[in-house]
Amino acid sequence: MTQTTVEKSPVSLLGLGAMGTALARTWLAAGHPLTVWNRTPARTTLLAAHGAEVADSAAEAVAAHALVVVCLLDDASVEEALAGTDLAGRDLVNLTTCTPAQARDRAEWAHERGARYLDGGIMAVPPMIGVPAAGGYVFYSGSRELFDRHQETLAVPAGTVYVGRDAGFAALHDMALLSAMYGMFAGAAHAFALIRKEDIDPVSLAPLLADWLVAMAPAVHRTAERLRTGDYTQGVVSGLAMQVAGTPAFLSTAEEQGVSPELIRPYFELMRRRLAEGGGEEDLTGVIDLLVR
Amino acid sequence: MTQTTVEKSPVSLLGLGAMGTALARTWLAAGHPLTVWNRTPARTTLLAAHGAEVADSAAEAVAAHALVVVCLLDDASVEEALAGTDLAGRDLVNLTTCTPAQARDRAEWAHERGARYLDGGIMAVPPMIGVPAAGGYVFYSGSRELFDRHQETLAVPAGTVYVGRDAGFAALHDMALLSAMYGMFAGAAHAFALIRKEDIDPVSLAPLLADWLVAMAPAVHRTAERLRTGDYTQGVVSGLAMQVAGTPAFLSTAEEQGVSPELIRPYFELMRRRLAEGGGEEDLTGVIDLLVR
Ligand SMILES: NC(=O)c1ccc[n+]([C@@H]2O[C@H](COP(=O)([O-])OP(=O)(O)OC[C@H]3O[C@@H](n4cnc5c(N)ncnc54)[C@H](OP(=O)(O)O)[C@@H]3O)[C@@H](O)[C@H]2O)c1
Ligand SMILES: NC(=O)c1ccc[n+]([C@@H]2O[C@H](COP(=O)([O-])OP(=O)(O)OC[C@H]3O[C@@H](n4cnc5c(N)ncnc54)[C@H](OP(=O)(O)O)[C@@H]3O)[C@@H](O)[C@H]2O)c1
Repeated sequence: MTQTTVEKSPVSLLGLGAMGTALARTWLAAGHPLTVWNRTPARTTLLAAHGAEVADSAAEAVAAHALVVVCLLDDASVEEALAGTDLAGRDLVNLTTCTPAQARDRAEWAHERGARYLDGGIMAVPPMIGVPAAGGYVFYSGSRELFDRHQETLAVPAGTVYVGRDAGFAALHDMALLSAMYGMFAGAAHAFALIRKEDIDPVSLAPLLADWLVAMAPAVHRTAERLRTGDYTQGVVSGLAMQVAGTPAFLSTAEEQGVSPELIRPYFELMRRRLAEGGGEEDLTGVIDLLVR
Repeated sequence: MTQTTVEKSPVSLLGLGAMGTALARTWLAAGHPLTVWNRTPARTTLLAAHGAEVADSAAEAVAAHALVVVCLLDDASVEEALAGTDLAGRDLVNLTTCTPAQARDRAEWAHERGARYLDGGIMAVPPMIGVPAAGGYVFYSGSRELFDRHQETLAVPAGTVYVGRDAGFAALHDMALLSAMYGMFAGAAHAFALIRKEDIDPVSLAPLLADWLVAMAPAVHRTAERLRTGDYTQGVVSGLAMQVAGTPAFLSTAEEQGVSPELIRPYFELMRRRLAEGGGEEDLTGVIDLLVR
């Protein structure tokens, strides 16, 4: 067997919070030359011991390598950290959570400074970084060329999913998936609240709840098809009218169990509104149109 | 090979709506003698052609067999349909959707009339009935003896999950799982609304959304463990303080995309309240306690 030594792309990383530190470790472990910078220098010590170069300033870190990854608290901290740096000719990959508009503005800001720009939205928590089986990944959007050039390096910490040239699309996908997750958590919170005062072990409810949510999640495929075609009625099994008729039982059950209906009522209200506007033969897809101004 | 003819238990079924008709078909197909009654007689015709006995009155149907299954619109229709019947000695299985309190009252009402009572909550739509691979099932609660005696018959249309002697527990589990599902649907509706005006195909978002929800659903196991132990802080990866700090980005994104935040805001409000009350080191479990009065 012949062993070929492949040069691994060097990376400059700004930001060594919980997430930045997790990213840094995976690049070091994979043999990528890594230069790190953090506002509070103490956080660089451990990584230096594992072979990272430590830059004394953000400007020095940006100057070190063509690929500059930033993973800071928020968009304002990116602005502040990169203020005195020379971004000309750099490939800037911003993994800091931000809104779509912030990402778009940041892309323009980077272009004005002569940098290429790729935005990222991390769908993982730090313990999932560098653990492929954990299923974490990062949404990327912005420069397709930049993504293609660095995809292999970016794939070291977590899977990569490119979602379009619009720099805001990574953040938009990130926000969409997390919003949906919070909705699911809100629903689960209501479910657990309903049994809180009963002689029912939450640990026995959990597998029933998890299996049910997993079984129902694929309903989003049907919703997506309906949104695409604009036909919300064809082949509907449980019509909106029937489902709205069922909502008083949910509210009464909450009342009986001493549980505030605040997490389930808003969706029921929208269902009712859509029904009042004539959507009785539809499924639940029409509610989405009521949300968009 | 010897073939043994096993006598199948006879069933009386009251209510031939969409669900009752689906149930009836599976019992007939499995060879159970079946007597049916429906307020509007026209709905019995097809089943009669498939071998069902048709009763002229609810009283006649109840008198026909020991096992009496009712699947009517709501609790009030059960009261009305069974008013003039003799329930003494009957095994009454009520698959009509109701609240836990209604189920408990109906159980008492049945006992007063000399019947045993089992309540059911159907976790399936009619097309899933008689299709084991579809994964539908029915929660049962109330008389354990009645459940054990008829479990084989009840398992013909869909899986059976017995959740306790309290007659209200089937309805409570039913309501809990469906509430959680509506929460998930609400979250998904918000997600689809966010991309509504963008050049993003909802059909390309759907698999990302479904996979993410499926990946996050098992979080309910951790929640259940915490509710059981009362410890909401041990081993927390994403603390409430950090998550609350992230919520403005969700609200800003909704604002940017012209989407009403009404479906995501209530949960964020509860997260904020719990943080204000000192839950910053917890995960999201504490929100559940805020819901219970
Ligand atoms: N942790 C997660 O579970 C997770 C999951 C998905 C996405 N993310 C995203 O990843 C990014 C980083 O998260 P994290 O968990 O690593 O956060 P963190 O542990 O709070 O670290 C924040 C980082 O930002 C730096 N920072 C803050 N303000 C700064 C400023 N004005 N100038 C320069 N540096 C500044 C901090 O430097 P100091 O050390 O000097 O304070 C630190 O390096 C965030 O956008 C977050 O939303 C995190
Ligand atoms: N369909 C589903 O997806 C589904 C899923 C889970 C649970 N369930 C539950 O299953 C039960 C039946 O649902 P379904 O879909 O079959 O409903 P459905 O198609 O609307 O049928 C309603 C049935 O109730 C009867 N009924 C209504 N009011 C009555 C009264 N006052 N006296 C006597 N009979 C009366 C109707 O008789 P007529 O024919 O004379 O009107 C009909 O047989 C409900 O509790 C529902 O919540 C349904």
